[in-house]
Amino acid sequence: MGTFAWAKGHGTENDFIVLPDADTRIHGDLDADFVAELCDRRRGVGADGVLRVVRSTALGINDGSTWFMDYRNADGTVSEMCGNGVRVFAAYLVREGLVDPAEPEPVSTRDGVKTVAFEPDGRYTVDMGVPRTLGDTKVAVGERTWSAMHVETGNPHAVAFVDDLADAGTLVDEPAYDRAEYPNGVNIEFVVPRGEGYVAMRVHERGSGETRSCGTGACAVAVAAAVRDGAAPAATNAPATYRIDLPGGRLDVTWRPDGRLLMTGSAAIVADGELSWHGG
Amino acid sequence: MGTFAWAKGHGTENDFIVLPDADTRIHGDLDADFVAELCDRRRGVGADGVLRVVRSTALGINDGSTWFMDYRNADGTVSEMCGNGVRVFAAYLVREGLVDPAEPEPVSTRDGVKTVAFEPDGRYTVDMGVPRTLGDTKVAVGERTWSAMHVETGNPHAVAFVDDLADAGTLVDEPAYDRAEYPNGVNIEFVVPRGEGYVAMRVHERGSGETRSCGTGACAVAVAAAVRDGAAPAATNAPATYRIDLPGGRLDVTWRPDGRLLMTGSAAIVADGELSWHGG
Repeated sequence: MGTFAWAKGHGTENDFIVLPDADTRIHGDLDADFVAELCDRRRGVGADGVLRVVRSTALGINDGSTWFMDYRNADGTVSEMCGNGVRVFAAYLVREGLVDPAEPEPVSTRDGVKTVAFEPDGRYTVDMGVPRTLGDTKVAVGERTWSAMHVETGNPHAVAFVDDLADAGTLVDEPAYDRAEYPNGVNIEFVVPRGEGYVAMRVHERGSGETRSCGTGACAVAVAAAVRDGAAPAATNAPATYRIDLPGGRLDVTWRPDGRLLMTGSAAIVADGELSWHGG
Repeated sequence: MGTFAWAKGHGTENDFIVLPDADTRIHGDLDADFVAELCDRRRGVGADGVLRVVRSTALGINDGSTWFMDYRNADGTVSEMCGNGVRVFAAYLVREGLVDPAEPEPVSTRDGVKTVAFEPDGRYTVDMGVPRTLGDTKVAVGERTWSAMHVETGNPHAVAFVDDLADAGTLVDEPAYDRAEYPNGVNIEFVVPRGEGYVAMRVHERGSGETRSCGTGACAVAVAAAVRDGAAPAATNAPATYRIDLPGGRLDVTWRPDGRLLMTGSAAIVADGELSWHGG
């Protein structure tokens, strides 16, 4: 592989290796095995995924964006979008002077253009699109069962309000859920109210287990909380805003009367430099 | 912190950030907070620990060594010695041309000088010193209890032979042990025989939970297996050698008639370069 530039960053403790590759000349198509080896936390450098920074025109993308986020999961597979990743991607663009933070920036992803706004407090707001609410379902941990709300925010979620976040136990095993309702699996959120417009949550992500943070999960939780509180914008014609505490940090989600979800959170580039890769 | 050289390596999936600092001019006394931030797997670069490479004379050490391994745990605390770490340390010295692999190299550690030999197959053999066997004890997971052997190999171990490594369950919770026998905690090994001179193991390390590999644990397992098999060198006056499969890879341990344990295993430097640090 030779030597290449890299950075490491995280958004609410969802962490990524950033690989600048504006003209696709450094990493080409980005080999899946290389990504998996790089992301292995013991045998490689370690991360939840890779964010390759590519100029949209270098890929023939003509969607109004300047930059394309080539997101890969830690196992090397291609993924459409990552709400925490796009904030880290934006933090990298700002740090490198590749975008003007005075204006919202349209970032191209495999799930379409995501607009990122730069907040005065240094945080990033991502337009996460329009959710779908699909009624009630059930989830269970051990012998305890909870009613949950089926919400889709790009991927499927089951949001259960519980008395105490410890009720979900160690979350080593996947909670039980209705496999007919979620044939492709589901991310399961456990939520407790903390005050008006304020909740705390834990999340079990399909294929990953319990994680420190899940952007689409926080969005699903805001939707479920607003419906539960009678604050859904479709009913009130006013935006509903929730502060959501996750194990990895804080996200703020606003559900607007036009149906769109805006997620605000921090992102940090913690290290970068030149890397010589010998792994694999 | 500015910019500094670094490397990432692992030995049987116990992984380390290597910080070259021959004259102590780059990292000084190595701040504990910096180490903890660097080793955080989400908010930093991520590793099980840091191996700072310092010239012995730069620290006034006069023990026949050329290099001192300044080992720090991931939480920033100072630690005496790490059997997997010293192999990675040696791999770095060889790669940088700082030692002659034709000769065994004495490496200075806080636990004294450890001699590392370079094997023709590219692996590293570390003299792990003389173990102590301290009789029988008991360990338990859930409602299952096993007899175990108390072995000290620099730190305390309880080695239990089991029918199946799955018997130890998920090992999320610490197994129960005799707190009077181990007032400072214990590393607990679960072992199954695989053949003559061949075992497989899992390990729960005090303070860390289940890990991919534990060098002193593999040594304790070799001792317990030799005693169990009637192959202890004190009885046979011949060396006892065991292949030990761990979740993170293979280690080979020889217990010699002079009482010393020699541990052989691989080590790899997977990436390195220049790092600019902005974390914390």
